[in-house]
Amino acid sequence: MDDGPEREILRATYRALCKHGYADLTLKEIAAESDRSKALIHYYYDGKHGLFDAFLELLYEEYTDRIDAATGDTAGERLRSLLAVLLTDEGASSGREFRTALLEVKAQAPYNDTIREHLVEFDAALFERLETVVADGVESDEFDPSVDPARVAECLTATVQGAHARRVAIDDSTDELYETLVDHAERHLLADGTGSLEVGR
Amino acid sequence: MDDGPEREILRATYRALCKHGYADLTLKEIAAESDRSKALIHYYYDGKHGLFDAFLELLYEEYTDRIDAATGDTAGERLRSLLAVLLTDEGASSGREFRTALLEVKAQAPYNDTIREHLVEFDAALFERLETVVADGVESDEFDPSVDPARVAECLTATVQGAHARRVAIDDSTDELYETLVDHAERHLLADGTGSLEVGR
Repeated sequence: MDDGPEREILRATYRALCKHGYADLTLKEIAAESDRSKALIHYYYDGKHGLFDAFLELLYEEYTDRIDAATGDTAGERLRSLLAVLLTDEGASSGREFRTALLEVKAQAPYNDTIREHLVEFDAALFERLETVVADGVESDEFDPSVDPARVAECLTATVQGAHARRVAIDDSTDELYETLVDHAERHLLADGTGSLEVGR
Repeated sequence: MDDGPEREILRATYRALCKHGYADLTLKEIAAESDRSKALIHYYYDGKHGLFDAFLELLYEEYTDRIDAATGDTAGERLRSLLAVLLTDEGASSGREFRTALLEVKAQAPYNDTIREHLVEFDAALFERLETVVADGVESDEFDPSVDPARVAECLTATVQGAHARRVAIDDSTDELYETLVDHAERHLLADGTGSLEVGR
């Protein structure tokens, strides 16, 4: 893909964020990661605040592309695929430095309206995908009819975010949690309670 | 309780952390929240690093006291009581400022061995309580014998931490999640699947 200057500046923001963290991120450090001057970055974006707004917008697009790539013929397969994207090391889109920087950004949300608004969007996108796939499963009689899609989605949204926080804070792999959640869904979400979410089984 | 100077300095650290966040926390700001001088804080603690080490040790003691106060006659009651301490607004031990500062501290873990070691202790304390109460329930035939205590505990540990991160990042109450988890445990953890974890029912 041929990156224009704006996209190239956002890529440099990614690299600078991984290297310096959010608190120490300045336009100077972003310019150092880019072919563009600090003045040009100022020309395109209104300081660190405006740049970070655009950066979170790009991350959101990439995030929704990634979770929307989780497909499957049945609701069970789609749920499994979505959890794999979210939780397995294989599905991880980014390295440790970036995940760490993102947790730091999250902690800024109470002080920063722009960041908070973006995080609410990320959270809603995840919740909405999880709720849809569970509701699909209930509607198609694949899942237990007494399952409440919104409640399952709320719970899984928290679990996924907690798993990501633990992965940063205590360097814990989330692969085993993925297995546990799939196993749990197979036992308690599927209508017959004896099926499998595994693709191709 | 009659606080000695060390305990009083740690209380001042709490207030300064709520006010300034972790990144901007200095001994000067802690001294400003205390009756003690910056020099005296230096006398008792080896700079910000040593002070924060002692502070996290105190938080850990308070945290384990709080979760160990979750009691009940049955494993189901103890689990419900533990989830109430962890997730309900009523059970919350601290305000928004402090929870925000703690999330910021978590994001420092990859760069700071002392913080990471403390966070691993907090995580292990929570996991261990959850695993014990679920194992108790399985042993006493109160819970489904096919339940794996370690896997349930792993999952709930992530869910609780994710709920705390969401409470900070998107200002979401965790009261409803508490209800969902109790309902879920009643349906899928109890041996007969029709019971209640509610105390006194």
